[in-house]
Amino acid sequence: MDVYVVIVAGGSGKRMGLDTPKQYLELAGKPVLMHTIERFREFDESIEIITVLPENQLRYWADLQKKYSFDIPHTLVKGGAHRFISVKHGLEFVGTPGLVAIHDGVRPLVKLETIKRCFEAAEKYGNAIPVISPADSLRHVTPKGNKTISRNDVKMVQTPHVFDAALIKQAYKQEYDISFTDDAAVLEKTGVKIHMVDGNRENIKITNPEDLFIAQTLMPFIS
Amino acid sequence: MDVYVVIVAGGSGKRMGLDTPKQYLELAGKPVLMHTIERFREFDESIEIITVLPENQLRYWADLQKKYSFDIPHTLVKGGAHRFISVKHGLEFVGTPGLVAIHDGVRPLVKLETIKRCFEAAEKYGNAIPVISPADSLRHVTPKGNKTISRNDVKMVQTPHVFDAALIKQAYKQEYDISFTDDAAVLEKTGVKIHMVDGNRENIKITNPEDLFIAQTLMPFIS
Repeated sequence: MDVYVVIVAGGSGKRMGLDTPKQYLELAGKPVLMHTIERFREFDESIEIITVLPENQLRYWADLQKKYSFDIPHTLVKGGAHRFISVKHGLEFVGTPGLVAIHDGVRPLVKLETIKRCFEAAEKYGNAIPVISPADSLRHVTPKGNKTISRNDVKMVQTPHVFDAALIKQAYKQEYDISFTDDAAVLEKTGVKIHMVDGNRENIKITNPEDLFIAQTLMPFIS
Repeated sequence: MDVYVVIVAGGSGKRMGLDTPKQYLELAGKPVLMHTIERFREFDESIEIITVLPENQLRYWADLQKKYSFDIPHTLVKGGAHRFISVKHGLEFVGTPGLVAIHDGVRPLVKLETIKRCFEAAEKYGNAIPVISPADSLRHVTPKGNKTISRNDVKMVQTPHVFDAALIKQAYKQEYDISFTDDAAVLEKTGVKIHMVDGNRENIKITNPEDLFIAQTLMPFIS
């Protein structure tokens, strides 16, 4: 079966208060996004890698690849105004039948075992997402106030979300909906049950300024 | 108004696969628990500190204090079989009227501003807990399957939980219930609304082995 990964890196850097979008920040000697791409290449030499970037960053990314002598082949795709559109653009380059992972460009610390678990389960069940249990207790906020939720009933969702390519391409033909907080939610809307597997705790999303330092600290734990 | 903090450190170390319980692991030159105690002392010189430890660790803690010349006065209280009992024991040493913070011994990275926000809001509303927004998307797991929850509707709960002392002492007279995942949940069961304030992202609970390294990395961000 053909395998694909769509790596989405839409960050403009504004959220971190930085000039450089977080996917290009240097982690252990090279940009975050290069680490992310390498993980999937290590998982499977024959995987087809599709990277979705904001249009105004394509030139910058080409320069970075030259600078770091980065030579893993990947298809570059222009992103859209928000994540849903970007993923949709990326999926246009995915063939069927096949399995496709959709992964955050700013999650360079995904373990190979996590990727493997997701692909294996997706082959069996049609989809799979990696989750971990929250360490903190949780509250549900509603217009009427807030209420404790049992931590045992909640999972935190990481990426990659791996799907049967035909199913997820079909699901992405829906109109955008506010409930689409991640790719599994898009598939779920079509009536499909989502299958969860174990993620790895180190697989953080580099969102806040301190996350880059945390990622640096966690690097030795994932290899 | 008299102010108190009950610091609960019940870990036996088993969860981390270590001989030393995590509250005694060394962070930037001294045990985690000493940092935690220091934060509250820095917040208010006159705060009464009550530390709850498992009975079989009292001797060890005394030795550590000698070894590190740690001289912040605090009342040592013997914990119980689980966290609910330990907090209850600690609260016996809290007077009324007053405000009491209940804090995890393994959260040494709470910022002074977080403690301050909690005490100020608790004085006004009778209780306050620090929360942050999750970075990951979330799923609700039920016996019938799992379903996406909007990340915007969920908050992750840190400590300290600060309460009007009389209210929380009364709440802790209830029978233990499985829904008591944190101290706010105990008060909530009596029909009281819980007030949320902003926590600080660095205020992690040292639970897993890699968390100690993350805490080390985050130390410079909180001072």
